[in-house]
Order: sequence, then structure tokens, then C-alpha cells
Amino acid sequence: MRTTFAVVPAAGRGLRMASKGPKQFLTLAGKPILVHTIEKLAATSFISHIVLVVPTDFLAHTQQMLEEFYGKQTDRMAFSKVSAPSSPTPAVRSDPSPNSALPSITMVVGGKERQDSVLNALQTLPNDCEWVMIHDGVRPFVSLRLLEDTWRAAHRTGAAIAALSVTDTVKRVQGQQVLETLPRDEIKLVQTPQIFRKDLILAAYAKAQEFGWSGTDDASFAERLGINVQVVEGEPTNIKVTTPADLEWAAWFFSSQ
Amino acid sequence: MRTTFAVVPAAGRGLRMASKGPKQFLTLAGKPILVHTIEKLAATSFISHIVLVVPTDFLAHTQQMLEEFYGKQTDRMAFSKVSAPSSPTPAVRSDPSPNSALPSITMVVGGKERQDSVLNALQTLPNDCEWVMIHDGVRPFVSLRLLEDTWRAAHRTGAAIAALSVTDTVKRVQGQQVLETLPRDEIKLVQTPQIFRKDLILAAYAKAQEFGWSGTDDASFAERLGINVQVVEGEPTNIKVTTPADLEWAAWFFSSQ
Repeated sequence: MRTTFAVVPAAGRGLRMASKGPKQFLTLAGKPILVHTIEKLAATSFISHIVLVVPTDFLAHTQQMLEEFYGKQTDRMAFSKVSAPSSPTPAVRSDPSPNSALPSITMVVGGKERQDSVLNALQTLPNDCEWVMIHDGVRPFVSLRLLEDTWRAAHRTGAAIAALSVTDTVKRVQGQQVLETLPRDEIKLVQTPQIFRKDLILAAYAKAQEFGWSGTDDASFAERLGINVQVVEGEPTNIKVTTPADLEWAAWFFSSQ
Repeated sequence: MRTTFAVVPAAGRGLRMASKGPKQFLTLAGKPILVHTIEKLAATSFISHIVLVVPTDFLAHTQQMLEEFYGKQTDRMAFSKVSAPSSPTPAVRSDPSPNSALPSITMVVGGKERQDSVLNALQTLPNDCEWVMIHDGVRPFVSLRLLEDTWRAAHRTGAAIAALSVTDTVKRVQGQQVLETLPRDEIKLVQTPQIFRKDLILAAYAKAQEFGWSGTDDASFAERLGINVQVVEGEPTNIKVTTPADLEWAAWFFSSQ
């Protein structure tokens, strides 16, 4: 049953991509990276709705993109046309399509930092949304297996994330000096998806706002509330496409599959 | 001036490479990975001698490989023929070639773990060796820049390593539960080269033996002696070729250069 809303932060400006523009809109293997990501989420059995968070000045571009890929394919993806926002922050939502076999999509305008973007999306979630899966728009290589395993793990405690074990030695460093070698079997590099019961992640983001917490992932706020966040082993190929080198790797990886 | 001996652990069994055998001997772009690595070290201005640590049953294979690539090219690499060891542990060394413009090479038999292999090599170092650079045989993509910068940094305190900053959120995890989010700007993923004043690394390995320390890198023993280990920013492409996926990436990376 589709009880989960996906929140997809895709509001990055692509500063590390030099002149190529926001990487979520770059084309790989015939489709924008963001479209690859959307199709991974749509392939799950449990996502009812996808909330894309995009830069204000890419709203029109995103809508065009969605129409191009889903506008005429109602059998493949229940894409509902969205309207432009009246101001940069309010949500832009179409009606969810609860009867559709595939998720519907809406757009929300992004904020200054990633956490502002996610908050904008969380504020649009309807009452009947029970679970929230947050997944970066520029992680198109996530497997269906990882999405499903993380979703299942979240049902144990209300929160779960994908995170990758390290094979390298890990050290804590200050300035140019090593402080200590850490126990590497306890260290994980965090990925998305990150999945939460809606009330938990809303409470966590409310506290973050109240106390001015900043964080590079969503689970860190939940951790600070004492929520038991479960970990599912991530995938080396579930990379965040951020730099030109990532993009080259991604093109090669698509072609090698 | 060439005052530094390179120790190159290449005694891995390639267990993660399935049936393909020890990865250091696999061919990439026309040469074994180990030969690529040797050529990177030889391109520096400061390495006088390279000590290869190989599995006992690959001594003959390694010698053949060296003869094939360097036996007839004395202008390119001062490769001195080596003889087989009388027992698995003693060192096998040719005479260094101090007058050569390029480093000479000897072989040493590896031990059970990486640290045993490095120790075997350290025990062969002559009195006139002042500095030791340890560099994994399966890191053929290291840049000359990184080798040189790490070598220079070592001269500040007697010890330096290459280590890569992380762009992901980093967490400490026990079992399936997150314990805490770590400050990611303090976390580094350790690579090689690792460079030490010879007396320091010998003292560190002696203590490790005495107290039964085990470690996944060489600097950890030096840290436990209180030695100030300097850190030089590593390179994302300076990967350790360990899995079949690494090998695919490596082939692609060579061809894309």
C-alpha cells in the first residue's frame, strides 16, 4: 500500500559543476538525472506522492521536464500539472492521485540550505501521509532493494537511513595533525534514502528551527531528539552526482549496466 | 637527493577479486597494476630504492614481471636481479644502486597480515636509509604531486600521511543503530603514501610487536607513540584496487586519461 510521501531535494545550484548548471537537470543516458531518480522512486510499491524541491527559477523548467517525460504517459506516471507559486516559499501542490497505480508529483520551491528545502517540502505534507522518504535528487543509482530495505527498517523504530561501511582506515584530524584513529567498523558514510514516521521528522525539524540547529542530513535532527535511527547498509554505487568527475563516472556507469 | 626507501606492500591474496587472483598482478592498460605503481614511485626525485613485498609463491612471477618490464631497460629503471629466499621470512635484497638515476628494486616475502608484510620490509632497510615511504602496491593512480607533498610534510615532524576529506555526513554506528553524527570536517579517509623517518617507524613497529597492537595503517602505531603525524589532502582517484568493481573503474579511468 502506498502510504509514503517522497521528498526529493533538488534545489542545489550546481556550484561544483562549473558552467554546466544544476546537475539534477543534466542529461545522462537520454534523461535528466532527476528523471532517473524519480523513476527509481516510482518503481517502489509504497510511494504515493513525490514532492520535488527545486530552485525558484527552475520551476518552469522542471514543469516542462515533467510534461516531456510524463505528460503523455499517464499509464506510466500520474503526473499532475502544477501551477507556479505566488511567493518563493509556499508549497505548490497538485492533488495527489490516490487511485493511481503510480505516484503523483508536485513541486515545492527550495530554500537557502538543503535543510530549508526539506522543511519547505515537509510543510506541504497532508494529514493522511504517515511516512516520509527523503532522497537526494542527484542519487539516481539507488537500487530498489535499498529503497525497500530502508523503508522496512524504518518501521522498526520510526526512522532509518542508508549508510555505507568504510574500507579505509578512518582518522580524526584537526588542522594538519592526526588526533586519533577511529574504530572503522563503527564508522558509516551516510547516504539517502532517509525514512521517518511523519510526526517524528516534523518534530525533529521543528526543534531544529526552534534551536537553530544545522545539519547535513535529516537524521541528525531526529538523533538529537533521542530517536533510535536504524541503519541499513548502503551501496557504493549510490553516489551523489556533485562534481564533473562524478558526472563522468555516472555516464560510464550507465553505459556499463 | 634520493634518501628515501619505498616499501610497497603487494602481498595480498586478492580474496575479494574472486577467481582473478592477486589484483596487484592484473594487467591494466598493458601493464600489471604493480608496474604502474612502481613507475609512479620511480618518477619522484627522492626514492632511491623500492622494496616490493610479495606472496612467497609469487616471487618467481614478480621477478619475471620485473625482468620483462625493466630487465632490458637499464636506462629507465635500475632493476637488480633478486634471488629466491631461503625461508619465507628473510629479506631478499639486491645491492642498491646509489649511482643510478632511478631507484633499484628488491623483493621481500610477505607475512600473514599487511602489518607483518611491512615489518618484513622494514627489517631489510640499510643503515643509510633515512626516510621510508610506504605505498600500497594496488594504488597505481597516486599523483606525483601527492607523493611529493606528503614527503615534504613528513619533514616537518617526521611523519605524514595522505588522507581524503569526506563530503558525506559521517556517523558512528553500533549494530544497526546510530550512536552519533560526527563533525565531518574532522574526519579523513586514510590513503597511502605514509612517510616516516626510519627511526620513528621502526620504533613504532617494535612497540606494535611488543604489545601485540594491530592496525590497518602504519601511522596508527606512530600515533600511539605520541608522534605528530601530519596530514596532506589525498585524492579521490588514489583508490586501492580491491574489488572487481574497482578494476572496472580503473580500466575506465586509465582509458579516460
